[in-house]
Parts: sequence; structure tokens; C-alpha cells
Amino acid sequence: MRMRSLSIQANWLLLLLGWLIFDFALATGPSKKQLANRSRTVRLGIVLFPGFEPLDVIGPLEIWFSISAYYPLTLSMISFQTGPVTAVAPPHIMVPGQPPVDLSYMIAPKLVATHTFDNAPELDILLIPGGMGNMALAQQNNTSVEDFIISRYPRLEYLQSVCTGSVSLARAGVLKRKKATTNKSSWAWVTGFGEKINWVPTARWTEDGKIWTSSGVSAGMDMTYAFLKMFYGTDDPKTTDTLTQVMNGMEYAPHTDPHWDPYGVVYNVPGADTSQPLQGCVRPVGY
Amino acid sequence: MRMRSLSIQANWLLLLLGWLIFDFALATGPSKKQLANRSRTVRLGIVLFPGFEPLDVIGPLEIWFSISAYYPLTLSMISFQTGPVTAVAPPHIMVPGQPPVDLSYMIAPKLVATHTFDNAPELDILLIPGGMGNMALAQQNNTSVEDFIISRYPRLEYLQSVCTGSVSLARAGVLKRKKATTNKSSWAWVTGFGEKINWVPTARWTEDGKIWTSSGVSAGMDMTYAFLKMFYGTDDPKTTDTLTQVMNGMEYAPHTDPHWDPYGVVYNVPGADTSQPLQGCVRPVGY
Repeated sequence: MRMRSLSIQANWLLLLLGWLIFDFALATGPSKKQLANRSRTVRLGIVLFPGFEPLDVIGPLEIWFSISAYYPLTLSMISFQTGPVTAVAPPHIMVPGQPPVDLSYMIAPKLVATHTFDNAPELDILLIPGGMGNMALAQQNNTSVEDFIISRYPRLEYLQSVCTGSVSLARAGVLKRKKATTNKSSWAWVTGFGEKINWVPTARWTEDGKIWTSSGVSAGMDMTYAFLKMFYGTDDPKTTDTLTQVMNGMEYAPHTDPHWDPYGVVYNVPGADTSQPLQGCVRPVGY
Repeated sequence: MRMRSLSIQANWLLLLLGWLIFDFALATGPSKKQLANRSRTVRLGIVLFPGFEPLDVIGPLEIWFSISAYYPLTLSMISFQTGPVTAVAPPHIMVPGQPPVDLSYMIAPKLVATHTFDNAPELDILLIPGGMGNMALAQQNNTSVEDFIISRYPRLEYLQSVCTGSVSLARAGVLKRKKATTNKSSWAWVTGFGEKINWVPTARWTEDGKIWTSSGVSAGMDMTYAFLKMFYGTDDPKTTDTLTQVMNGMEYAPHTDPHWDPYGVVYNVPGADTSQPLQGCVRPVGY
């Protein structure tokens, strides 16, 4: 065999081998960026206000809390003042034309705020929950949450909302020409806010650039799982992966299809996809 | 026709009609007891301790909170002292033979305790969450939670646990000859406590008399939905039913089969039912 043709064959073989190794490296295990995310201290902030929805906060926060045993995080719970913040909204109009409703007879879980809008530290990721408190704040023309979002938005890596928390994002003006969703029972009210927003009627969660929004309440857990999979990557084999172990330790089998959103049908959301089965089938992560 | 045979036929027809009406009344709508539950003030207590698992508490509490808009409830959050209680467990041995692990680097969600074990009011329903704090308390030989359970048990209508919270029930001695479960990743450790307990290896939740226990973390929500369906009953049509509206407002499609427990398989629990598919299919309540 002539030296020249052997060299060409060898070159092609080397190219092929290199491409296979490259693809294999891409296909399994975390990327460089994901590895970097795992070793830097990620600064998470969650806003609280009277009338926040408890599971909007603690659904995602359970997953972040659990994974903080493995990856470095800091948490700031941010509100009007530090200390206990109640899940019971102040009196507000719940039905147009009706007088304000006093909900103080409800039971009142309380989470503890560690910072105020004024003294919260620099943040990488900010989460805005929903709850009846959004409606109360909007009726009061209170823009503290929105002002905070506006001030932090340029330096945030990610801004996320659960349920009616997207109202605050809409009022802050950061959803212009972006996809967003909300819980489906409050669809008409929420989508009245903001301008030029691409409201998605069938979505368990949406993702558009650095903005992630979820549907109602428990959907925050599904969004957070999808986000953390993107943010931290997945080790191989899956069953030893950290995020996998966290989700299975929680015994939460997440909905992994962002298009599974039967609540758009349940609540007759205009434009909702009625062709999908309402049923969603889930399983332990990695199995 | 003779008068006597017409009378017999008429009697049988009346009996049949009466039986049909009786069965129909039983089959639809809430029972008298369930209606009574809806109008009396139900006194719910939830224990907190350093290292409680956030979602063990807030999963169930989100449902109770939501339904408290419709049915009268009171809530006591009960701990060693009132005020903020952290979800981060104190240093404790996590692996036998290894030194205690300091988890203070984790992020620290905090819930607010409203009462202590000493001054908590009379309760109808008591919920004990799990979390790494159970392990810390057991290692400290601390029996405050168990003493509280023992003192309240005779007057409780229901005692419930989520995840490793069943350790406290076992240590309190109230699980003798009763069915119980726990999260499946801590199975070996939890089932070492107590005597003559009928630990159920495949169970999303168990129910035995006034004791309800659930599997890990998110299973508390499925147990609580099943419990509230039993406790408050279901109105007809289902889609207007209060509990149904609460669950759909949460956009949480519950697992309704207590035998769906793929985590017994994931965590190799001895005696777990390996014949079932790991997948669980869920849908909006009432649909």
C-alpha cells in the first residue's frame, strides 16, 4: 500500500474516532457549564408577600433545599419586612363588583422572610410565587414586588414564577414578546396584565430565554425539576445522579412534558389544546 | 285480581322502591357525619422540629389551608418553642460508624411555630412530619415529640404521619399491631423502631383505625387528599365539589391508589411488591 493512501485512510479513521469520542462526551454526563454551576455558590431568592401560596414556594424550595446538601447555594426569602409572612391575603375584592372579602378566618401558615426588598443581596435566580396576595397587591396599586424585579432583572441569570406570580412579571414589563403562562383557573384575570405577552394557554411551564413561568401551584415542582436538569445536568448512570436521587428521595414522580396541561381544559382556557388526553403518566426519575 | 295478591305485589314494589331510594341516597353526596365535619371547627395540629422536611408539612398544609376557606379549621404549629423552626437538622450521625455530619451549610427554609408542646390547645387531628430531624432527635434520646403524642393520643380523632414521621409514632408505642409505612429510602432505619408493628412495604399511605401514615415527602399530599375525601365526603356532581375544586385549583392530580408505590422497588425494600408497573397515571380530580 502506498504511503499516501494509507495516510488518507488513517486520517479518515482518526477523524471518525475523534467525532465518535466528541459525540459520546456530549451525549452523556454534564456539560462544562453544568459542572461549573455545581461548584459555584448559586444565589437563590424567593419573594414572599401576605397571601403567598404555600406550595408555590415550598414545592420548588423542597427541591432546592434537598439539592443544597450537594451543590452550594444561598437562600434569601425577600419581603416587605423580615420575619413571619402569612399565607392569608389581606381583604381584597375577589369578584368584580362585590365588596372586599375578609379571609382572616382561614388558617395561616407562615414562612420567615430573611431580607427586605431594600437589603436583599445580589441574586442569580429569583422566584416569584403566586397566591391571592397577588390580587390584593394589584388592587392596592402596590408595585414593590414589580419594582424589585425591575431593579434586579438585568443582573439575574434566571427569573421564575409559579402560578399567578407571572402577574408580577407582567406588571414589571419583563414579559414583552416573551412566552409565559399562569395557573389556568385565574387565566382571564392574569392575562389582562402587561403588553405584547405571548401567553401560552396549554403549558405546565414555559421557558423563554432567562424567564421560566409555571402553571398553578404544584406545577412549580415540575418546572423546577426541568430547570435543575438543565442547570446542573445529569450524571451517568442516571440512577446515581444527584438530582435523580433528590427527586426519588422526595418520592415525587414529576410531569416531564411541558405540554401536559389538562387544567387548560378543566378551566376552559381560550385556545387551550383540547386534543390531548387529560391523563398524565409519571414514574420515578431514571426508571 | 284478588285484593290479597295485589297487596302482596304492591308491598314488594314498595320495598324495592324504598331500597333503591335508600341506596341512591347512600351512593351520592356526603354522609351525615361528613356534613357534620364540614360545619364544626376542626382543630388541626402539626409538629415542627429542627430538620423537619418542608414538603412533608406544606404538601398536606396547602390542601388544609385551601379548604379552610370553605370549612372551619384552626391550625396549631407545635414545637419546642414558638417562632421560626429551621428545616436544617442539627449535627447527627448519618451513616453508622461515621462522625456526626454538620449540615449548617444547607439553605434553611423556616416555618413559624405558634405553640409549644406544653401550651398547644386541644386537637382533633395531629400530623407528624418527617425529615432528617427525626434521626437527630432519636440519637439525642429526645422524646418530646413522642411524649406529646402519648399525652394527646386518647383524645385525638386522627393521628397522621408523613415520611419518617412514623418513627415518632413507633417510638410513642401507638403503632402496636397497627399498619404503618414510611418513606422507602429510610426503610431499614425506620422499621427498627417500635414493637409488633405491621410495617407495610408497598404503600403510598396506610390507614388503620385513627392512624394514617404516608410514604415519603410528596406522598403526604396523596394521603391528605384521600383522608379529606373520607372526612368531608364528596358533593355531586363531582366537578362542583369543594375538595375537587381545591385539588384542581392546586393543579395537583393526586395518586389515588394506596398500592401505587414504585419507591419500594426503587429502594429495594424487603417484601415490596415488584409485580406492579412503576408508572402511575393521574388526572384532574373529577375528570
